[in-house]
Amino acid sequence: MSRQRPINPPSPPKHPAQVTLADIEAARRTLAGHVLRTPLLAAPPLSALTGASVYVKYENLQVTNSFKERGACVKLAALDAGERRRGVIAMSAGNHAQAVAYHARRLGIPATIVMPVTTPFVKVKATEALGATVVLCGETVLEAQLRAEAIAAERDLVWVHPYDDAHIIAGQGTITLEMLEDVPDLDVLVIPIGGGGLIAGNAIAAHALKPAIEIIGVECALYPSMWNAIHGADRPCGGATLAEGIAVSRAGALTLPIVRDLVADIILVDESQIERAVNAFLTLQKTMAEGAGAAGLAAMLAEPKRFAGRKVGLILCGGNIDPRILASIMVRELERDDRIASFRLTIPDRPGILGQIASRLGELGANILGVDHHRLFLDVPAKGAKLDVTVETRDGAHAEQIFRALKDEGYQPVRMAGGAALE
Amino acid sequence: MSRQRPINPPSPPKHPAQVTLADIEAARRTLAGHVLRTPLLAAPPLSALTGASVYVKYENLQVTNSFKERGACVKLAALDAGERRRGVIAMSAGNHAQAVAYHARRLGIPATIVMPVTTPFVKVKATEALGATVVLCGETVLEAQLRAEAIAAERDLVWVHPYDDAHIIAGQGTITLEMLEDVPDLDVLVIPIGGGGLIAGNAIAAHALKPAIEIIGVECALYPSMWNAIHGADRPCGGATLAEGIAVSRAGALTLPIVRDLVADIILVDESQIERAVNAFLTLQKTMAEGAGAAGLAAMLAEPKRFAGRKVGLILCGGNIDPRILASIMVRELERDDRIASFRLTIPDRPGILGQIASRLGELGANILGVDHHRLFLDVPAKGAKLDVTVETRDGAHAEQIFRALKDEGYQPVRMAGGAALE
Repeated sequence: MSRQRPINPPSPPKHPAQVTLADIEAARRTLAGHVLRTPLLAAPPLSALTGASVYVKYENLQVTNSFKERGACVKLAALDAGERRRGVIAMSAGNHAQAVAYHARRLGIPATIVMPVTTPFVKVKATEALGATVVLCGETVLEAQLRAEAIAAERDLVWVHPYDDAHIIAGQGTITLEMLEDVPDLDVLVIPIGGGGLIAGNAIAAHALKPAIEIIGVECALYPSMWNAIHGADRPCGGATLAEGIAVSRAGALTLPIVRDLVADIILVDESQIERAVNAFLTLQKTMAEGAGAAGLAAMLAEPKRFAGRKVGLILCGGNIDPRILASIMVRELERDDRIASFRLTIPDRPGILGQIASRLGELGANILGVDHHRLFLDVPAKGAKLDVTVETRDGAHAEQIFRALKDEGYQPVRMAGGAALE
Repeated sequence: MSRQRPINPPSPPKHPAQVTLADIEAARRTLAGHVLRTPLLAAPPLSALTGASVYVKYENLQVTNSFKERGACVKLAALDAGERRRGVIAMSAGNHAQAVAYHARRLGIPATIVMPVTTPFVKVKATEALGATVVLCGETVLEAQLRAEAIAAERDLVWVHPYDDAHIIAGQGTITLEMLEDVPDLDVLVIPIGGGGLIAGNAIAAHALKPAIEIIGVECALYPSMWNAIHGADRPCGGATLAEGIAVSRAGALTLPIVRDLVADIILVDESQIERAVNAFLTLQKTMAEGAGAAGLAAMLAEPKRFAGRKVGLILCGGNIDPRILASIMVRELERDDRIASFRLTIPDRPGILGQIASRLGELGANILGVDHHRLFLDVPAKGAKLDVTVETRDGAHAEQIFRALKDEGYQPVRMAGGAALE
């Protein structure tokens, strides 16, 4: 993704009327003792990776593992007695659902969460386990939204919007108060954008406390809704993204003018950059980031020059990623790094061959991870077979050395893209 | 693992002569600014899992992702000018190697690290990347040790022992100073034991600051060396463990008397408990623990009653785990939780059958993860085939429901132990 033109010069900031620094400071007092004051820590391995000086704000350590608790807690705490008695409703398949459920239970407020029927089991269960009533309806987010609005009207429930709400925006903005308290000389904050609540609150706080700080937004390239709104463009929104937490098709009405005023630029990141960033958080920083949570790092990987040598604050905003998907990302990254390599060999179909190949690979220092044997391919002679072997390798040079050795032995190796024989 | 008898009443503590609270407080001043003062955070999901009130000390956030930096930094800082010029040597295939390499480079001290030839590539590379000279020799740790001692004598290098050293013990003990500063009312600390450096330093600090605190040690059941030494037993040490960081066959000479005096008990944990704990840290707490790093939580899973209702401090002492192994643990845990289930079906070998089965599974709400087709098994009729299907399920009841449906359709399902058809 190439560098985008600046949306607006970062100063002087014009504070939108809805949310002020005072609101965010009040929100912080509301959160005290109920939401974790997360650590902001230097991340030397990520600094080495990106060439910047990277600091990570660990919002994935919140009880429900995302920053969404901040906004939800502030919103719910602001309700009056009658509203609390009637209860709240939200539509979300993700972190907002759990955040609302958790703080509603804590405050004794009945919560109804509407989720599309396609929501993964594990998210439905997690939300129910937090005491919320989950209503599954609608094939799409839009259908679920319409149904949720109908239920809200019918039962007179308070709507808890995931981003287009001044209390939510103020709650999310408390992150920057903590970050600048811990590391006052941050040069730039890189903040994921879904509907824009996170970046709006934090941009207001950052510009009020430190006008010179630069705020960079990040969207996934498949859902450039805020980017479209800012640039008057209409790139399509859609598709399966690893960063489903920021896959929002329309910019918020409250958040858009704040982003327009206070955000220097929006970087669009593609899926492979998000995947690399998730893996880097896990393997280098030993922490779990969901796709949206890794979007800030993905933006740094996308445009390293822009951040080189600067003190960069990343909000690791969520850690809820499906373990199966995470496992698959980790294996794919090992393949990309040539630390796992797969070869398809053509072999004579007689006893002892597999032993010979395995011994040769052992001599070459290649640890065998998987073997798969095919006799039924049409391009194999009747007395021959194909053998897929997947091995652990040191690096690209080692993989190449193994390839050449197998070729010299007459096995006609073909390098395979995926871990073909990996269980 | 059943409850072990207390080794010794926890008070009055007799402080071994070698290391005192004053030494540990001095070590803390040495570390300031060079080693991360890690966060100690409440871990509600782990509290819910164990029935205790769990606090986690995130030593995996250190630059080289383990607590070993504390001892290494204190030891290296104590060297005189002549020793620094000559350089240091250590034998380690793991975290101690990287900790010594990192702080030696920082202090401008040449470091030689001897590793057994069986050490994984990635650890060799990581240690070299930190500026150390790596010498690969010896099939076993013992052979590598002998070679390292020979090199040390030959070149007059300073030996940096991983645990049997007063500076190392004092450095590791700084963890408890920080923990009790953050959460003074901890009731018990659960601390992994390899050679015993970590538990020795922290037991000294804890008993000096808060004599009533209970210190529980954890060893993996495959390497009960400290347990043997304390109990005068001789259970065998050996085997492949996920907790290779604490797979030590002989208790330290300095550390043993400290453990004897100050540690209330040692819990032995088996591999499945360690695996569960690694997975719980990752999926519930969104952080990466290596086997040894998760040993404290494994002990809580092994003996939950002992910790129920108490404030428990866990030292997540290291996060260096091979991504492939972690990926495999995650998938295995999903299988154990019945969130992934595999069935082997006997099917007539004609067109359309796979489509029928896939449609039926879809109706049942089972997401297909993998399919594998066999025609060559001898127990299949010539016109039949075996089909292995792996599906994502909600829970055990859902898996059972799918099993019964497949049986009713005549596919003679057999439940498979592993993700047979999972790529």
